[in-house]
Amino acid sequence: MQDEIPFHVPSFRVRPLPAPELRKDLLVDRWVIVSTDRLSRALELHSANTVTPLEACPFCAGNERMTSAALLELFDEHGRWRVRVVPNLYPAVRSNVVAQAWSDGWHDGCKAVGRQEVVVECPQHETSLANLPAEQLTQVLGAYRERLQAAQEDPRLAYAIVFKNSGAEAGASLEHAHSQLLILPQVPRIVQEELDAAKRHFDSNSRCFFCDWWRVEQEAGVRQLLDSPRFSVFLPYAGRFPCEMCILPKEHQSRFEEISAEACQELGDVLRSALRKLQRGLNDPPYNYILHTAPLRSGALPHYHWHLEVLPRITGVAGFEWGSGYFINPVPPEQAAAYLRSVQP
Amino acid sequence: MQDEIPFHVPSFRVRPLPAPELRKDLLVDRWVIVSTDRLSRALELHSANTVTPLEACPFCAGNERMTSAALLELFDEHGRWRVRVVPNLYPAVRSNVVAQAWSDGWHDGCKAVGRQEVVVECPQHETSLANLPAEQLTQVLGAYRERLQAAQEDPRLAYAIVFKNSGAEAGASLEHAHSQLLILPQVPRIVQEELDAAKRHFDSNSRCFFCDWWRVEQEAGVRQLLDSPRFSVFLPYAGRFPCEMCILPKEHQSRFEEISAEACQELGDVLRSALRKLQRGLNDPPYNYILHTAPLRSGALPHYHWHLEVLPRITGVAGFEWGSGYFINPVPPEQAAAYLRSVQP
Repeated sequence: MQDEIPFHVPSFRVRPLPAPELRKDLLVDRWVIVSTDRLSRALELHSANTVTPLEACPFCAGNERMTSAALLELFDEHGRWRVRVVPNLYPAVRSNVVAQAWSDGWHDGCKAVGRQEVVVECPQHETSLANLPAEQLTQVLGAYRERLQAAQEDPRLAYAIVFKNSGAEAGASLEHAHSQLLILPQVPRIVQEELDAAKRHFDSNSRCFFCDWWRVEQEAGVRQLLDSPRFSVFLPYAGRFPCEMCILPKEHQSRFEEISAEACQELGDVLRSALRKLQRGLNDPPYNYILHTAPLRSGALPHYHWHLEVLPRITGVAGFEWGSGYFINPVPPEQAAAYLRSVQP
Repeated sequence: MQDEIPFHVPSFRVRPLPAPELRKDLLVDRWVIVSTDRLSRALELHSANTVTPLEACPFCAGNERMTSAALLELFDEHGRWRVRVVPNLYPAVRSNVVAQAWSDGWHDGCKAVGRQEVVVECPQHETSLANLPAEQLTQVLGAYRERLQAAQEDPRLAYAIVFKNSGAEAGASLEHAHSQLLILPQVPRIVQEELDAAKRHFDSNSRCFFCDWWRVEQEAGVRQLLDSPRFSVFLPYAGRFPCEMCILPKEHQSRFEEISAEACQELGDVLRSALRKLQRGLNDPPYNYILHTAPLRSGALPHYHWHLEVLPRITGVAGFEWGSGYFINPVPPEQAAAYLRSVQP
C-alpha cells in the first residue's frame, strides 16, 4: 500500500483505505465505490494531459512488461497478439479482499470485491477503434465474450459491465484504443431498473420489450440508422445525448456471452459502421459505449435482451442534470438519424 | 424561429422544433428534454471558450440592455441592484407553448412547458460566489425564495429546480457569478425518488429522514463540516464526488420558500463558509450546487426537508458511471471532512 497521497493540494493528504468500499446512499438506494486506489490515477490525469508519448504507451506491442500478465490474448495467424486483456493497474475494486458487509442502521456498506480489466483493442498505437478493420472489432467483441464467461467463475461476483471511454472528454486516461470490464458483487442500479421494467413488460405482454422495440423502430423508420440480418441500430426516441445509438440483436438473446462466432463477426461490421458514421459525421467526437447484458449467473432470461448503448459526449452535464435526473438533448433523434444515414461509414 | 442551425459540422443542419419536447424513455421512466433552442448555446460553447470579454458580459451592471427585462431586482441602500433575475436567453423549456401530450404506446411525450431563469449574483464582474460578502449570498438566497414563490402562480408548472454551475468544467457558459431556476411541468425523477423514499421512512418511523440524518451525522462527527444554530453542513457517507457536501436546516422545513429572513441571513454565512473552504482547500475547483425542495404546490410536507447539495467536479464521469449508475469517489468523505475542517473559510 502507498503512503499518504496528496490530493490536488499538498496539504490534503489522503490515507489509503485498506480496501475499497461500496457504500449505500440510504435514502435513494444509490451505491458509490469509495476507492483510494483510483487516487493516483485521478492525480495523474489532473497533472499531465492524457496524451502519452509513444515509447511509454503500456498498451503498445513491445511494452507488454509495462502491464501485469495478460488474462487473455487473441492472436493473428503469425502468432502475434491482436487483442490483449490485462488487469487495470488502478482498479476501483479488488479481488483479493475478504467479503464483508456492515450496517449501523444508517451507514450501510461492504468491501468492494471485484475485478477491473482492460481490453487492449490492437497492438499498434491506434487511438480510434473506428479506424481498425472489422475483423479487429470482431476480436474485441470476442474478448468481451470470453472475459464475461470467465467472470462467472468467481461466485462472489454478480455483474460485469463492459464499457469504453474514447477520447479524454469521455474519460479515457490513455489514448491507445481500449475498453474495460468492471466486475461487481452487485447488479448495478441502472441494469436492475432495466431488468425490473423489462420483467413487468414481459409479465403484461408475454413478449420481450427489446424484441418489440427494434420492430417498432424498424416500422417507424425515422430513427433507424443501420440494419443487418442479425442487428438493428437506431437512435432512441428519448436519447440523452445527441446522436445516441442503441445496437440490438434482432433475435432474442439475454446474455452477450452466448453470441455465436458468426453473429460476432456481423456485429464487428455493424459496430464499425456505426462508429465510423459517428467519427466522420461529427468530427471524431469523444464517446462512451456500454454493454448491458444479463447478470453473470442469471441463466437465459426470456424478458431481457442484451444491447450496446453508444453515447457521444458532445454536450455537457451540469447542475440541472445532476439534480433532476433529466437530460437536455439539443438534437432531435429523428434529425440526427437522417443525417447519420447520409454519412458514409 | 431561426433557420436551420449547423451542428458541429456544417453538413449537419438541424431544423428548429416548433417547441421543445419532454420525451419519456419507456423502459426506465427517464425523461429527456429535446430542445433545439439550446443548440445555438451549445455551439457557442463549442467554438469559443467560456471567458467573455468584460465589455461584452451581459450580466455586468451597465449592460442590462443585453438581457431581457428583469423578473426581479434586489437593491442596495443606494437603489442600485445587487441581485438581478432575468429570463435565460437560451431556455431548454418555454412558457409560451400550449400544453399538449402524446403517446402511440411506445413514444410518450409532451410539450416542454416551463421557464428558465438566471439569477445574476452580483453587479460587478466577479466570477466566484465565494468571493462575495455574506450579505450578498443572503440576497441571492432571497432571490431564490421569491422566484420559487412566483413560480407557484403558473398552474401548469410542478417543480422548480435551483442550481448553480460554477466554472467551465461544471457547465458554466458565462463566468460572471450566476445561478439558475428551471421550472418544469413535472417533478423530476431524482426528487420524486427522494420524496417517495422519505415518505416510506416517515411512514415506518413517524420521523423525517432528514431530521434524523443531521442528528446522526452530528453524533458521528467524522463527516461534519460546519454547524450553526439553524444549519448543519456535512459530507454524505456515500458522496458521489470528492468533498461533496449537504447543507440542511436543523428545524424541519420542507419548502425553501418558507425560510425566514433570519434563517436566510444565517444560511448566507454558512454557504459562504462552505464554498470558501472548498475554494481555498481545493484550489478553486469547478462545482455545482442544487437545491432540493418540495414540489411547488405540495404544501408543507412532514416527511420531506429541503437541502442544498454541493458537488465539486474534480473527478470525471465516464462509461462506467453512465452505464451502471455507480459513482467512484477516490476520497473517503471522513478524510475530506477532516481536511476541510482544517481549512480557514
